[in-house]
Amino acid sequence: MANVTKKVSWSSRDEGTGESTPLLNGAGKDSARYSSQQCLNSSILGRLSAVDLDDQSSEDTETSCLKEIPHSEKLLSSKYESLDYDNSENQLFLEEERRMSSLEFRMLEISRWVVCALIGILTGLVACFIDIAVEQLAGVKYIVVKHSIDTFTEVGGLSISLILWAALNAAIVVVGAVMVAFFEPVAAGSGIPQIKCYLNGVKIPHVVRLKTLVIKVFGVISSVAGGLAVGKEGPMIHSGAVIAAGVSQGRSTSLKRDFKIFEYFRRDTEKRDFVSAGAAAGVSAAFGAPVGGVLFSLEEGASFWNQMLTWRIFFASMVSTFTLNFFLGIYHGKVGDLSNPGLINFGRFETEAMEYNIYEIPLFIFMGVMGGVLGAIFNTLNYWLTIFRIRYIHRPCLQVTEAVLVAAVTATVSFAMIYFSDDCQPLGENQAEYPLQLFCSDGEYNSMATAFFNTPEKSVRSLFHDPPGSYNPQTLGIFTLSYFLLAFWTYGLTVSAGVFIPSLLIGAAWGRLFGIFLASMTNGSIWADPGKYALIGAAAQLGGIVRMTLSLTVIMVEATGNVTYGLPIMLVLMTAKIVGDYFVEGLYDIHIKLQSVPFLHWEAPATSHALTAREVMSSPVTCFSRLEKVGNIVDVLSNAAMNNNGFPVVSEFSASDEPGRLCGLVLRSQLIVLLKHKVFVERAHSSLIQRKLQMKDFRDAYPRFPPIQSIHVSQDERECMMDLSEFMNPTPYTVPQETSLPRVFKLFRALGLRHLVVVDEENRVVGLVTRKDLARYHLGKHGLEEMQISQT
Amino acid sequence: MANVTKKVSWSSRDEGTGESTPLLNGAGKDSARYSSQQCLNSSILGRLSAVDLDDQSSEDTETSCLKEIPHSEKLLSSKYESLDYDNSENQLFLEEERRMSSLEFRMLEISRWVVCALIGILTGLVACFIDIAVEQLAGVKYIVVKHSIDTFTEVGGLSISLILWAALNAAIVVVGAVMVAFFEPVAAGSGIPQIKCYLNGVKIPHVVRLKTLVIKVFGVISSVAGGLAVGKEGPMIHSGAVIAAGVSQGRSTSLKRDFKIFEYFRRDTEKRDFVSAGAAAGVSAAFGAPVGGVLFSLEEGASFWNQMLTWRIFFASMVSTFTLNFFLGIYHGKVGDLSNPGLINFGRFETEAMEYNIYEIPLFIFMGVMGGVLGAIFNTLNYWLTIFRIRYIHRPCLQVTEAVLVAAVTATVSFAMIYFSDDCQPLGENQAEYPLQLFCSDGEYNSMATAFFNTPEKSVRSLFHDPPGSYNPQTLGIFTLSYFLLAFWTYGLTVSAGVFIPSLLIGAAWGRLFGIFLASMTNGSIWADPGKYALIGAAAQLGGIVRMTLSLTVIMVEATGNVTYGLPIMLVLMTAKIVGDYFVEGLYDIHIKLQSVPFLHWEAPATSHALTAREVMSSPVTCFSRLEKVGNIVDVLSNAAMNNNGFPVVSEFSASDEPGRLCGLVLRSQLIVLLKHKVFVERAHSSLIQRKLQMKDFRDAYPRFPPIQSIHVSQDERECMMDLSEFMNPTPYTVPQETSLPRVFKLFRALGLRHLVVVDEENRVVGLVTRKDLARYHLGKHGLEEMQISQT
Repeated sequence: MANVTKKVSWSSRDEGTGESTPLLNGAGKDSARYSSQQCLNSSILGRLSAVDLDDQSSEDTETSCLKEIPHSEKLLSSKYESLDYDNSENQLFLEEERRMSSLEFRMLEISRWVVCALIGILTGLVACFIDIAVEQLAGVKYIVVKHSIDTFTEVGGLSISLILWAALNAAIVVVGAVMVAFFEPVAAGSGIPQIKCYLNGVKIPHVVRLKTLVIKVFGVISSVAGGLAVGKEGPMIHSGAVIAAGVSQGRSTSLKRDFKIFEYFRRDTEKRDFVSAGAAAGVSAAFGAPVGGVLFSLEEGASFWNQMLTWRIFFASMVSTFTLNFFLGIYHGKVGDLSNPGLINFGRFETEAMEYNIYEIPLFIFMGVMGGVLGAIFNTLNYWLTIFRIRYIHRPCLQVTEAVLVAAVTATVSFAMIYFSDDCQPLGENQAEYPLQLFCSDGEYNSMATAFFNTPEKSVRSLFHDPPGSYNPQTLGIFTLSYFLLAFWTYGLTVSAGVFIPSLLIGAAWGRLFGIFLASMTNGSIWADPGKYALIGAAAQLGGIVRMTLSLTVIMVEATGNVTYGLPIMLVLMTAKIVGDYFVEGLYDIHIKLQSVPFLHWEAPATSHALTAREVMSSPVTCFSRLEKVGNIVDVLSNAAMNNNGFPVVSEFSASDEPGRLCGLVLRSQLIVLLKHKVFVERAHSSLIQRKLQMKDFRDAYPRFPPIQSIHVSQDERECMMDLSEFMNPTPYTVPQETSLPRVFKLFRALGLRHLVVVDEENRVVGLVTRKDLARYHLGKHGLEEMQISQT
Repeated sequence: MANVTKKVSWSSRDEGTGESTPLLNGAGKDSARYSSQQCLNSSILGRLSAVDLDDQSSEDTETSCLKEIPHSEKLLSSKYESLDYDNSENQLFLEEERRMSSLEFRMLEISRWVVCALIGILTGLVACFIDIAVEQLAGVKYIVVKHSIDTFTEVGGLSISLILWAALNAAIVVVGAVMVAFFEPVAAGSGIPQIKCYLNGVKIPHVVRLKTLVIKVFGVISSVAGGLAVGKEGPMIHSGAVIAAGVSQGRSTSLKRDFKIFEYFRRDTEKRDFVSAGAAAGVSAAFGAPVGGVLFSLEEGASFWNQMLTWRIFFASMVSTFTLNFFLGIYHGKVGDLSNPGLINFGRFETEAMEYNIYEIPLFIFMGVMGGVLGAIFNTLNYWLTIFRIRYIHRPCLQVTEAVLVAAVTATVSFAMIYFSDDCQPLGENQAEYPLQLFCSDGEYNSMATAFFNTPEKSVRSLFHDPPGSYNPQTLGIFTLSYFLLAFWTYGLTVSAGVFIPSLLIGAAWGRLFGIFLASMTNGSIWADPGKYALIGAAAQLGGIVRMTLSLTVIMVEATGNVTYGLPIMLVLMTAKIVGDYFVEGLYDIHIKLQSVPFLHWEAPATSHALTAREVMSSPVTCFSRLEKVGNIVDVLSNAAMNNNGFPVVSEFSASDEPGRLCGLVLRSQLIVLLKHKVFVERAHSSLIQRKLQMKDFRDAYPRFPPIQSIHVSQDERECMMDLSEFMNPTPYTVPQETSLPRVFKLFRALGLRHLVVVDEENRVVGLVTRKDLARYHLGKHGLEEMQISQT
């Protein structure tokens, strides 16, 4: 089972090698942590033991020691590495910083702005490309199908049209599904959970690679044009993040090009800031919501608010929406027109027509409750479905088959809805782009087709703005139900696609229905405009599913272009969140949990004051001394059981069991670079001389440090010594053993740490706290619960 | 001079007692820190010395040791205490937390929401009260003056009208000025710098007291109704903060009422969060900008972003604008109408009429440059004026006189402008509320009077929305110049008033002028609407003066109610900030610096990596042992020279000079409470028994802990011992001596610390870092500069 979990995880495909067949050989219910320790040959180094499960496990433990893991969401996977948002301020780093003049710092600042501008421009261009490609492709498809339907309506044999439509959809979707399933599984879905994890400090493999971006872009085009119940907005956030990660590093490892620029930014701290900007730029391009984008980045990622950083993020967002706007203006033939700020445009809400009254507020709150309940149902269904997928649909070919099936079913359902609908509306000004006459009389069109025979963005817009009477209640009711089922089935497919637009569409449909119902109750008061209720319903449904708060309010307000709706949208989102949270978590959080990601929330569980660092930490810790034997280091790094990433450096080892005094912290990545460059201390009988390393050497290796296996160390070299003084961080953050968990948590989270050393009162190392030690406590129904850590 | 600085400082009036006459008895230019040490009798306790200048000085040092301090902005005052945003997690605290069930934590969370709702409602009501009071009072004034002018225009003798106007203004202003100058100087100005300081972690005395709120509210009514060139928006932020501080504590010390609720919130950490919410609610009520309010709070205060907190702040903001809206709706006779979200309302911008084109963007950027330059001039002039005021206008009666003078001059200038203006416009639909005919023919009105004979809010609105041609260019030019001079003179007067509206008004005037100029150049293209340029000019001028960034963009966008202007407003604000920063700091920062507040910026200066904790820290440190003699404690606390607020507790004192091992940190306030309750360890021959203290005892004393002088300790008691183990924080944050300044800074700022203990490698206390140690480094023109610390 554990292996099954691994198979479908966001990024596992090319992680290990021993995963060709699912192994369900385990039966015991021991904790994975315990079992892994049992299986390991832990005698390599006597004073070391497996403490810092902060890394992906190696293959041999995987294949030999896997147990059945009954509920993967109750586990934390140890395969995810952490990002290090705390600079390792070693001597090299400090020397470099001290050499820099204030002019150089100013130049750096300017280049940060340049990078942000580039991020904005490229994100805008990508959004523009996606938009145009989808519109063209979907346009061709709808014209072909419409032609077929128009033809066969008269002569009979509409089933041929249905088959044509389903086949077209499936053909388009299969391209994207194959790309995602076979080449880059991490490009599936909206990418928002992955970016949340990245900003939280968890390294999801491949998440910010160029290949992921390419597959994401083409994947989303195929799934939207293929008529799935998905949107192209969520993936923009991921795309922006990848662009940011690429641009800011001034090189592409995939393309093997190094432009030798922005080298200073090659570390987690700086990269994270740019990725925040990229995610914000993505939101901004998706919804035309630059402020919402900034808030999204802050809400999901930033723990430390910095004014200049925020301002740069905002700049990237603005540039992104502006670029999109500008090029879409050119595409639509109106150069200089700035009316397309985002991929989704809610259209213009006329303030006069759609003003709300204070007496409507209870109604809005009621809609919020509905949104929360419906969202919780959606999430629960999707959760079960995802569990099912984890168990049974884990091979790429099965995944592609499912995607094709969904595409065909979507077309069939749509067709059936349109076919059986008798809701004819006169062709007016607000007509749909591809009006289907079908069985309606001349001069009329089928209103169900407006909702189904269209890209979802346009359907949302028509639900918001079509004049009262454009839809009859039955149409809306059936549409809501069928689209709800399609959308929950679609989310989690192995295609690149977002859940924002389907949520909005479902909400807009039942919101409009609610509005019509109200209007019929009151016989034409101010409540007569169902578009207003469609908007509120859309907000409620989206809020009930994704549970974002401040950022979503601002995104919705910016997308409507009208500040007036701020209050009702906020009320609705808040209600939906409170009601929804009562039942089940938000959709993204569910998927993060199902992947067993060690995600750190904002605060430690409220009732965790009873725990202290002593209970939380991993102990004993593998330590090095300042002058350590190379052989020792290689052994520790090669020991798969001790996949630590940070090693405290201690001043001396006493003969007794007493741990040494802390004098620094050295990272696995640093040791790897040192070993690679053979920075060994010269011995009398050896010709090795210590090469002077520079920060550049570490930056060049970032972020794909080679594995220890690839570094050859001769037997002679094993006897050398390595002086860590210059490379270790001499001032790691420490806490005493008695520190309460919330206090440890706060320090860890506020500073974005990866390792926190626990010391006793004489500054001797007694333990090490890593992300997983903190992430495993959560507030369950029966008080504080502790999750197990699995090796996969 | 030092004493002069003190006299005019925000809050000094009732701080000390020995300040009746300004003493300019010093001549040397030694640093105040050095001189203060010279003057002190530092032999009280041999092992202690003056290190942690974290407190207000006592009177005797003030009167005897003051030196002339030539430029007070190059100094840091040691009179400001810090707030402690890090919980002291001592045994009592942890025991209490551990006793609490998760249900109780949930109740706490609910009560936080209740407090936020109360904050929002009360802030909205206060805003409503101010708005109505100003409107009524100004209405009466304008009607009287208009009647007089109308009368005397025909019969001659307009000078009587002028005198009437000036006298009325002066009479109204004098009330506010007297209240502020004599009763609560901290209520002067907008209060934004003070709230910035509070959120930054500096305790400005009296800043969140009920008395300050009352004086602020009536002060702002008097200054706006008195016709000064001020706005009522800035003070709302301060008012919201005071309301929040009051409500969240569930008691009023001034009114001596304790409602016995919200006792859990009686500490700096919780209070800060509520004050953030209050400030946001204030912004929200002032500008109808709930999102802008949240961003303001975050931009100015929060260093640690927490999703739930942000959401609560947003809730308070929304409630505040809603309350204001609701009650103003009732006041205007339209119950249920929600069109008055803020005190200032930019009016409705019709999107069609005021669309901008991409070609206009360079023009907007140019206006941003102008705004930056004009803002820098404004700030520089105001800076000189403030220096002048610090030197010469420091007595309350002089301050009141100046305020009255400004009020009279404002009336005179306005009158002269109106009198000499020959800009007559036909009375149309968009007529002013109090149209003055003066020398215009019948059916016309004097357009200069629209700008001057009106509250500034209404003038801003008419500049934005009056149809093209309502003002002629000369009128606007003269108005800009005269209002610019009036506004810079007015800011810093001893009255409660804000600078937002005057800035907007100046900018709107020259922006409109610019628009008219453009229109005349191009002969009626899209640029024909000068209202659009008025808006951009207003943004540019405001940005050039206050230099806020993201929050101001959002505030402006929310106030216009139209998202379309997001991009140009952002560009303009960014340009204005960059250009303005080149010359001089923002107005609020200038005033904070002039008060020598130890304000911590976002990051340590870029070039400060060369400094380490060893150079930065204060050393040696006054330490206590776990079991300390009461006499010792009293002596240390009473020693005015050692006005420390935090004392490391060490495990043992060796006989040699070796410092002891750190085992905790105890605060002055905690010691005071312990002394007050005589929590002494029982001795064999004494009848004293140790009373069991609870968190409640500390909370009851918060925040006004009595001075040590008020606590009587008998000679017998001095011989007792005090056991600090239970009350000290056993896990204070520490850093090693070699930690670089940026790293120390980051830890300190991210966690909102007040004391950071510096330890050596064996965990022995070697120093203590406090706010002033960090705030005194700044990047000057010649690299890193260090400010001196003064005693005043």
